[in-house]
Amino acid sequence: MTIDFWFDFSCPYAYLAATQRRRLAAEAGVPVVLQPFLLGGVFQAIGQVQNLSATLSPPKARHNRLDLLRWATLFEVPLQTPVRHPNRTVDALRALLATPEAAREAVVDSFYRAYWAEAEDLADRAVLHRRLTELALDADAILALADSEAIRTDLRQRTARAVEVGVFGAPAFVVGDQLFWGQDRIPLVVRAAQGWRPDPQYDNFRF
Amino acid sequence: MTIDFWFDFSCPYAYLAATQRRRLAAEAGVPVVLQPFLLGGVFQAIGQVQNLSATLSPPKARHNRLDLLRWATLFEVPLQTPVRHPNRTVDALRALLATPEAAREAVVDSFYRAYWAEAEDLADRAVLHRRLTELALDADAILALADSEAIRTDLRQRTARAVEVGVFGAPAFVVGDQLFWGQDRIPLVVRAAQGWRPDPQYDNFRF
Repeated sequence: MTIDFWFDFSCPYAYLAATQRRRLAAEAGVPVVLQPFLLGGVFQAIGQVQNLSATLSPPKARHNRLDLLRWATLFEVPLQTPVRHPNRTVDALRALLATPEAAREAVVDSFYRAYWAEAEDLADRAVLHRRLTELALDADAILALADSEAIRTDLRQRTARAVEVGVFGAPAFVVGDQLFWGQDRIPLVVRAAQGWRPDPQYDNFRF
Repeated sequence: MTIDFWFDFSCPYAYLAATQRRRLAAEAGVPVVLQPFLLGGVFQAIGQVQNLSATLSPPKARHNRLDLLRWATLFEVPLQTPVRHPNRTVDALRALLATPEAAREAVVDSFYRAYWAEAEDLADRAVLHRRLTELALDADAILALADSEAIRTDLRQRTARAVEVGVFGAPAFVVGDQLFWGQDRIPLVVRAAQGWRPDPQYDNFRF
């Protein structure tokens, strides 16, 4: 049993969720497995408008912003206006996939901090290079590999897989056949990892 | 200090939230005040599409349904496919406002059960009449008053007030100047009623 954590760096709620993934693993007692994917690719595949936050009514947008502040406060994590949003994350995702497996957790933390806590331009390869170097990784080798057809294919396949398992936004948590959307569903993910499911009495509910 | 609970009968998440309002009041240690409003009127005022659930991508709609089953399971409350959705609730809301104050909590429970747990047509005045009668209320008098200009004006004014305080969907909880949207924000509402606010370090965050 594992918890798949589907994420892209471009979503603030996925950032908030990422800060809680170790706590989630500890509470659930199962590993949380990194599942990077390209959110824009999923949106395109399912016919979802690309920039959802631009479609919100003014009071909903206001609540959205306050909601982010509240969760950041609750989780006690930094949050800063991004340098640009939505920003291009495909190079960052490929760099993550080109990183040796043992270093990927640290890269996820660093890239998320860059986008959502330190107002750095994650679309800028110089930023990726510096952050990889700060983690004592071979940034030149990683960024060269990130451009390879193998890594491009890897990200494409992971994004296609995200669509297959029902991912429609980020963050998503998948436990067996159950998908949960949002950092606010983490308590339900913990339960699901311990065998919890919706009561079968509701199976006929259609909505 | 009070918690204003803004609701319309037409939203399943507002139904779920309504089932938790007494627990919320007990946990927060402050009264939860019923604030009925016409959700369609707010949507019209803020330029929101009327039937949001019809706009969801198939995987998001699938998650939405499962999410409702999960919260119903978590809250241990009944849930049944509504006879029609979205259904017209303006008569039910006016009947609630025409009900003597002391009986309104019971009417809210009964009307929500009708819509979301017992597949009854809440747009049907015969259903309203029977449910009011079951609560030992004078259904004839209440439904006559519900048609009065005073009650129509009351609902219109409450809906305008909802827009003023920033309501954009149901359920919404308002504690002082803080608005929370959704039954999933109840833990934050409890904190807010105890003085909690987002950390001022985030005040410059723009999104």
